Amino acid sequence: MRYFFEISYRGTNFYGWQRQKGQISVQEVIETELQKLFRSERIEIVGCGRTDTGVHAKQFFFHLDLNNEIDTNQVQFKLNRMLPNSISVQHIFIVNEDLHARFSATNRTYRYYINQDKDPFLEGSSTYFPHEINIMKMENACEYLMGTQDFTSFAKLHTDVKTHICTIKKATWFAENNQLVFEVSADRFLRNMVRSIVGTLLDVGAGKFHPQEIQKIIALKNRGAASKSVSANGLFLWKIEYPFE
Amino acid sequence: MRYFFEISYRGTNFYGWQRQKGQISVQEVIETELQKLFRSERIEIVGCGRTDTGVHAKQFFFHLDLNNEIDTNQVQFKLNRMLPNSISVQHIFIVNEDLHARFSATNRTYRYYINQDKDPFLEGSSTYFPHEINIMKMENACEYLMGTQDFTSFAKLHTDVKTHICTIKKATWFAENNQLVFEVSADRFLRNMVRSIVGTLLDVGAGKFHPQEIQKIIALKNRGAASKSVSANGLFLWKIEYPFE
Repeated sequence: MRYFFEISYRGTNFYGWQRQKGQISVQEVIETELQKLFRSERIEIVGCGRTDTGVHAKQFFFHLDLNNEIDTNQVQFKLNRMLPNSISVQHIFIVNEDLHARFSATNRTYRYYINQDKDPFLEGSSTYFPHEINIMKMENACEYLMGTQDFTSFAKLHTDVKTHICTIKKATWFAENNQLVFEVSADRFLRNMVRSIVGTLLDVGAGKFHPQEIQKIIALKNRGAASKSVSANGLFLWKIEYPFE
Repeated sequence: MRYFFEISYRGTNFYGWQRQKGQISVQEVIETELQKLFRSERIEIVGCGRTDTGVHAKQFFFHLDLNNEIDTNQVQFKLNRMLPNSISVQHIFIVNEDLHARFSATNRTYRYYINQDKDPFLEGSSTYFPHEINIMKMENACEYLMGTQDFTSFAKLHTDVKTHICTIKKATWFAENNQLVFEVSADRFLRNMVRSIVGTLLDVGAGKFHPQEIQKIIALKNRGAASKSVSANGLFLWKIEYPFE
């Protein structure tokens, strides 16, 4: 049986989602606790994506195949007691065996949070950016990100993906609780893509680029054409969509 | 000239307010940056109190005596750029030389935050407490804390204070944004006092003590009579009052 787990986590104290030697990852911490719960099963979980060190997930899914049926409410209750406060399990449910946490996702949404007034209690979950910026210019620049394009200029170098083509369906700025938020949805994201887009849009807001120069930056297909990435701590994987929802 | 600084800080990554050898304290970090700003002055700041490792301050005051007059807006602006994101300066103002950050405070308020539904994004600033509790009993117990009493039963052992007598003026529970909050005001607090009171009130809520047993616990003047302290991460120094306000 294939189970989907809906979780959320604060990424501050993890080296990202993905299991890696000698570092504490979200995947490893969850697999370790699941193994304690299901001693007779081979535990291997498959996440909906990867998040880098310090990046948070407001919503994240992984799947797990088990030979035996489980009491999902009881497992959720136990897991929440066993896992650290930085990881919570919201929901566990059975899905068709052909639904894959990573490959079946049709849409992913990220948010990036910025605070312009210093607030110590946002430490780790929002980026302090005290410089003056023109938000209308940043919003205007978003239209040039939309659609199916080659995003090499916003991709980390030397990754093993076959193509840098993504379809951005939404890109917008809004205000929420004294914070400035960038929300972006796409079928897929390249590594470092949201953080380099935000860095570039902030440079648009600061007057370094005109909004329409985003077109040129994309056309150059060169990471050097875009701006530096912003830090991980304001970034949240926000929503994952599947055909069943 | 005596200056008052109103600040706030997230205590997660500090060994409390007070300067101590080999540990990073809020006081040391602030004094280091002030010394860079005022090279010709001897920098020694006096806080309104002490907070332990991991405890936060929504409001905190310290005073600093300087020989030369300063541009308070400019100093605030510069300090906020120099200090880490976990410390912010809200206000700097001149006071009478006889006003003392610690001794002139007439009232102090603490809050303790508890989340009963697991929320990773409250990590470090609220205590996850998933057990069933009766909040009305906890509220009823608060009345026995009120007034001028000897709080030895809620005091850390072996501290150097002369008396354990405090006057509690307010003690109450309320709900805020899916969290349960304990708010307590007094003329002074003993070390560990709020955290041992919260631990004891949670035991009242869980049915271990009757609300009126708080009277007995106080009368025993014995730390062993009260419950264990709750963790530091839900505790906020919330408000300090002075005669000028």
